[in-house]
Amino acid sequence: MTEVADRRFMSLALSLGRRGLGRTWPNPSVGCVIVRDGRILARARTADGGRPHAEVTALAACDAREATAYVTLEPCAHVGETPSCAEELARAGIARVVIATTDPDPRTAGQGIARLKAAGVAVETGLGGDEAREDLAGFLTRVTAGRPTVTLKLAASVDGRIATATGESQWITGPLARRDVHAMRARHDAVLVGAGTARADDPTLTIRDLGQDRQPVRIVFSRRLDLPLPSRLSQSVEAAPLWICHGTEAPAAAVARWAEAGARLFRCPTEGRQIAPAAALQALGAAGLTRIFCEGGGSLGASLLGADLVEDLICFTAGTALGAEGLPMIGALGLDALADAPRFRLAGVRPIGPDIRHHWRRR
Amino acid sequence: MTEVADRRFMSLALSLGRRGLGRTWPNPSVGCVIVRDGRILARARTADGGRPHAEVTALAACDAREATAYVTLEPCAHVGETPSCAEELARAGIARVVIATTDPDPRTAGQGIARLKAAGVAVETGLGGDEAREDLAGFLTRVTAGRPTVTLKLAASVDGRIATATGESQWITGPLARRDVHAMRARHDAVLVGAGTARADDPTLTIRDLGQDRQPVRIVFSRRLDLPLPSRLSQSVEAAPLWICHGTEAPAAAVARWAEAGARLFRCPTEGRQIAPAAALQALGAAGLTRIFCEGGGSLGASLLGADLVEDLICFTAGTALGAEGLPMIGALGLDALADAPRFRLAGVRPIGPDIRHHWRRR
Repeated sequence: MTEVADRRFMSLALSLGRRGLGRTWPNPSVGCVIVRDGRILARARTADGGRPHAEVTALAACDAREATAYVTLEPCAHVGETPSCAEELARAGIARVVIATTDPDPRTAGQGIARLKAAGVAVETGLGGDEAREDLAGFLTRVTAGRPTVTLKLAASVDGRIATATGESQWITGPLARRDVHAMRARHDAVLVGAGTARADDPTLTIRDLGQDRQPVRIVFSRRLDLPLPSRLSQSVEAAPLWICHGTEAPAAAVARWAEAGARLFRCPTEGRQIAPAAALQALGAAGLTRIFCEGGGSLGASLLGADLVEDLICFTAGTALGAEGLPMIGALGLDALADAPRFRLAGVRPIGPDIRHHWRRR
Repeated sequence: MTEVADRRFMSLALSLGRRGLGRTWPNPSVGCVIVRDGRILARARTADGGRPHAEVTALAACDAREATAYVTLEPCAHVGETPSCAEELARAGIARVVIATTDPDPRTAGQGIARLKAAGVAVETGLGGDEAREDLAGFLTRVTAGRPTVTLKLAASVDGRIATATGESQWITGPLARRDVHAMRARHDAVLVGAGTARADDPTLTIRDLGQDRQPVRIVFSRRLDLPLPSRLSQSVEAAPLWICHGTEAPAAAVARWAEAGARLFRCPTEGRQIAPAAALQALGAAGLTRIFCEGGGSLGASLLGADLVEDLICFTAGTALGAEGLPMIGALGLDALADAPRFRLAGVRPIGPDIRHHWRRR
């Protein structure tokens, strides 16, 4: 097998894995391609909900004897209800496994590779590793740090305003940008907004017009749990789960009302006038989330940025200016010096209809 | 001559014309290509300082009998120290003139075309017209509205801040963005900043490191003329002209001091706490300027945007966030409604080193 072909098949496995983002939590969305003599025998990704794993689905679809398996993450070594993927690959007669990146989950962490080798399977690791670690960052961060990754999305005027002084904020960016946002929601486990945005916009936070069969969890951070009830969020709990992170000072009556309305509640410590963002993300990680898409507002965005908890920053910029009285896209950060500002590297920029989208990744 | 060849030669004439932007004021930077039998005989642009005109230079370089001339602007009809370009083209035996756009200057305004036709020259108008009107917008606006066009350049963090609360502003964007700014300065007749920027940054506003042989005029708007003296601006009047627009309330002593320091002073009406931008631009237009490159700060930018005087908006965005306490890139606009916000259409976006540059044009 040539190196070019190896890269091509791993690239296919990576793109399969990406298709499951937002659909497999708490498990990673892994891609698997099985190839013999340059011919693809089977391809699969982790199923919705996280099981079966990609390897098991692919193996079930072909006779894999003497074949090579390309997997984006080290096959699992933990035996539960079903045998481990490492065992299944060996048992199916796979001769060689090419792995993009290892799995830090302590139940696997090298043991998947060890079991394959012990069974006489050739194992290579690292091809496509950087891309796999980027795609699987949510899962990897949950395993290693106990929290999901956060993508912060903000749509603003060229001068970074998300609403006029009088609060007008609808339709700053155009319909293509909004459609793009819905597609990004679909690639995350959950959509998150702050209480101010929930009150101001009365959003639904569901994915619409994309033929979506699966909705991400909707999360609101509300320190005092003073959200209007009923609201579009409460009225759509059948369509998509609603989780609320509230502070310790939230009244018990409000907690009870929201629980009755169908929300899942997380009691979180507070820092000043906000939910402590690191603690809240730990709680959400413990609940299984790996990828959160935060849509603001400015205060929540600042809280997450200030705590260095934003991995991806997606900005939509519209060709207008709202002036210094407008509502800032990012609230106060309390920086003492320019050197303390959060820094991001450019991951991509392009026009989206009349607007632009720029994507920045944490350095 | 085929249409494809016509477009190719006009495109060349347009690119020649663009090379002279910032170097020919108060005259337009026109491009001229003379072609016979598909072969280019001569090409020229308006010379630095505005004379000789492109047509005269090109005609002097070839035998133009029976040739076609491609010019980006209607040849002039006004006879002054020298014969008009329309006469020169006819006299040289040119058989056909292809003109991108007509000249609204009342001394020409169709008479250039009329003279050519009267002399038996075939004339076609309109090829490349949109592009020519974009390139020549500064000249055309000065002729039709009496003022130069303004390009507003702002460099900011993703949240639209140009400095921290403590005033730190240097190096938000990288060296490639700064180099790009110097190249843009070179394509304008003048560089403009507000008094706040002049005080905070003590800038030179000259073009450096580009082998530039010609410096744009430096302009400061300072209502009270309370700029520090000496400053880098005053100390570099030999290298580049320094013009100051001040309000009627500026002390006579300050006016005298700056005149003595070598600045040219423009006494302008004020609106509230700022120089009236439309009146100041009229004065600068009367002084010959056609293209102004404004580099802020936020108050001057807001004043120009609020008066609908910004044709091009160039934003550099760096991958950092400074938070709501940071200095806004655009000051207060006093908008009552989102519908009143200035609107721009996207003209281009691309990465510049670690930053992005987005270019917007007035709708």
